Amino acid sequence: MRFKVDGRKVTIGGMAKGAGMIHPNMATMLCFITTDACIDKMALRACVQDAVEHSFNRISIDGDTSTNDTVIVMANGLSGSNLLKSYHPQFGLFKKTLTHVMRKLARMIVEDGEGITHVVDVVIKGAANAQEAKLAALAVAKSELIKTSWTGGDPNWGRIMAALGYSGARVREEMDDIYYDGLLAVVNGQPSKTPLAKLRKLTRKPVFTITIHLHSGMGEYSILTTDLTEEYVRINKGE
Amino acid sequence: MRFKVDGRKVTIGGMAKGAGMIHPNMATMLCFITTDACIDKMALRACVQDAVEHSFNRISIDGDTSTNDTVIVMANGLSGSNLLKSYHPQFGLFKKTLTHVMRKLARMIVEDGEGITHVVDVVIKGAANAQEAKLAALAVAKSELIKTSWTGGDPNWGRIMAALGYSGARVREEMDDIYYDGLLAVVNGQPSKTPLAKLRKLTRKPVFTITIHLHSGMGEYSILTTDLTEEYVRINKGE
Repeated sequence: MRFKVDGRKVTIGGMAKGAGMIHPNMATMLCFITTDACIDKMALRACVQDAVEHSFNRISIDGDTSTNDTVIVMANGLSGSNLLKSYHPQFGLFKKTLTHVMRKLARMIVEDGEGITHVVDVVIKGAANAQEAKLAALAVAKSELIKTSWTGGDPNWGRIMAALGYSGARVREEMDDIYYDGLLAVVNGQPSKTPLAKLRKLTRKPVFTITIHLHSGMGEYSILTTDLTEEYVRINKGE
Repeated sequence: MRFKVDGRKVTIGGMAKGAGMIHPNMATMLCFITTDACIDKMALRACVQDAVEHSFNRISIDGDTSTNDTVIVMANGLSGSNLLKSYHPQFGLFKKTLTHVMRKLARMIVEDGEGITHVVDVVIKGAANAQEAKLAALAVAKSELIKTSWTGGDPNWGRIMAALGYSGARVREEMDDIYYDGLLAVVNGQPSKTPLAKLRKLTRKPVFTITIHLHSGMGEYSILTTDLTEEYVRINKGE
């Protein structure tokens, strides 16, 4: 990714390696990012922490994390701009671009997940608060029953409602709406009028988004996850 | 199960239905227990809560719970003993027997789990406290990576160490001991001298116990769980 700081070209490049044991707080994952940006050390550290929180800490393949995870960002300053600090007019642009690069790498890691056939964005909106939104998103992203339903292209929103129920987030099921991409599947906790065949067709796509509105507040969270396949079991059963 | 109260024969009988979506706080599960014990209502309720906590709330198949779970205990008093209350000399015997019946039914539910080929007792000892012991046990019982290793009969204690690490329980890996049944696999966080072939043979058995000593306190917890098989995915992918 290229952008300009003080009129000088700045580049951020990156590479990452996955792909088993992926979950927030990272996994068997190595990520190296290089940039010629001229940036203050503490400011860079803050950018990295924030970008990781919105990228690598928002992906989950099998709910397992590993003991050896690394994100390293190296900046050599060769672009020759003024030092990027929080008050620099282009500081926000640097941070946004770094987050974008990390989110792209994080998505590639998920797409590389062991045996996966579906990549699913789980988006929670309207939770009582951000913490409860995260609980709800993780419950859905970690549920073996939900993940296997995706494997079969089954828009099984009943399993999603059940996971929301045990997630620990405050949920009033008569308020919940669930969308598969733009299709409304559940409205006020009841099946919508969207034909099942349409939902089925959508969940057979390799990539889709499930958006859940809890209508209990302003809390939002999203996580990128995958299905759970027979191939995943085959790869990891170690025979 | 039969025992005597005030010299009169008392029977506790039960039946239960599983078997998908099994996790603490119960699942798609129905359990009916009948007894001719003559027991005080509040005393029975306390017994049931305690017995459930040590039986149905200590099993996990896929980490999912359902919305319709039931344990009902009916006592008609026909045995004709004095009323069982907490100060009755045989009250402890009733409670113990009820717990035993529930634990037996809970184990049968796990043995009936969808597509399972191994039933594993996960026992945590020496955690800092009971709450942390539970966190550690649940992390192991819910890990897809650990469960798939059992499917392949692979004594992969590295995955167990990793799960302990992210469980939220205080763990000093250089203190951990891990046993597969009576065989020491890990001692002070390092591989023991037990030959891998012996551990492999043990983990191919359909039923075994993994005991983890954290050596950080007196906290204990145990949970009965299963492996995660290709057959489980096949059953639940809904095609």
